[in-house]
Amino acid sequence: MILIELTKRQETIIDIVKNHGPITGERIAEMLSLTRATLRPDLSILTMAGFVEARPRVGYFYSGKKNADLFGDALARMRVSDYQSVPIVVQETVSVYDAVVTMFMEDVGSLIVLKERFLQGVVSRKDLLKVAIGGGNIHELPVNLAMTRLPNVITISADASLYDGAVLMMRHQVDSLPVTPKRLESGENVEVIGRISKTTITRAFVELGQYHEI
Amino acid sequence: MILIELTKRQETIIDIVKNHGPITGERIAEMLSLTRATLRPDLSILTMAGFVEARPRVGYFYSGKKNADLFGDALARMRVSDYQSVPIVVQETVSVYDAVVTMFMEDVGSLIVLKERFLQGVVSRKDLLKVAIGGGNIHELPVNLAMTRLPNVITISADASLYDGAVLMMRHQVDSLPVTPKRLESGENVEVIGRISKTTITRAFVELGQYHEI
Repeated sequence: MILIELTKRQETIIDIVKNHGPITGERIAEMLSLTRATLRPDLSILTMAGFVEARPRVGYFYSGKKNADLFGDALARMRVSDYQSVPIVVQETVSVYDAVVTMFMEDVGSLIVLKERFLQGVVSRKDLLKVAIGGGNIHELPVNLAMTRLPNVITISADASLYDGAVLMMRHQVDSLPVTPKRLESGENVEVIGRISKTTITRAFVELGQYHEI
Repeated sequence: MILIELTKRQETIIDIVKNHGPITGERIAEMLSLTRATLRPDLSILTMAGFVEARPRVGYFYSGKKNADLFGDALARMRVSDYQSVPIVVQETVSVYDAVVTMFMEDVGSLIVLKERFLQGVVSRKDLLKVAIGGGNIHELPVNLAMTRLPNVITISADASLYDGAVLMMRHQVDSLPVTPKRLESGENVEVIGRISKTTITRAFVELGQYHEI
């Protein structure tokens, strides 16, 4: 994928095609007082980018495809499975205190809570902080009293796009998502194979701008 | 900005120019057994995108400009000042308990700690959780004993790019940055005019893919 800044002329051509299409290249050239040859590269670029479509013997017409759809195409290719990190898990019976210790030792912002090997819930720093200042005995309270539990846990499947993960985190106001092998059906026992978080998205955002050869 | 997927032929042209440049359009056409006219749109696109440069009477040569540099150009245009949110602040003398309450009421992951109106430090959920399970009296301990304090606070100026903010958060492993009116000099009293966090970056990432007219 490459990024190209549209020239003023190319933007004008899009407007002309939008308002007058279908329209021939000759007619566009006339309206801009340019030769057809001068216009040819611009029309190629706009056609390739999907802004306008060319039909033989009819002319150019506006495709309705927008700039950011194209950006979206690029983002949609980034898969959760390419960016997920190792899930840090605890059993649902561990104490709040032990969960906090695990969180600090692993330096993560949330833990995935399991019953045997199946997802039961997710517990965040925020959940644990709420309990910790609540005055209860954090050495005795089990973590499953502090967690968000199924079916309220938002998960994402490994084959989804990272972009969808970002959308889910914003929509549901959570900082991380457990990654499941496939889309989770309600009531199903599911194993967790990874996690993504807002840190994952921030890393991907940084990568977008990093130097790499095509 | 528009995104274009390079065709196989365009990638081949880049390789030819890389290996044989400076090279004329005629010679490239010959190597590909194509006419010069067929090649013209491809060469226009590659020139516009900055992959190859054209010099009259010399030919095309490889610019060394890479794909992601171009992505970077787009990201570099997103300014901190366009994305920052309101800073949630507490005075350095408030208790850890009151800081936690503010954090929950405002639903933020970190607070900016001031002395009068000047930046003293930043305190995160992680910092407060550490103190909360430490067993001290959180109603008496002041927040400035739990915070990261100057000069160790990582800040960003409002005119920096959001991209630089993301890089700083990844490099220093922090979840948010106070935004200052200008670059912070050491020892200087500074007011805080905003904050960005990994949530801000996730929101920007989502926006990148959203539909909007050019």
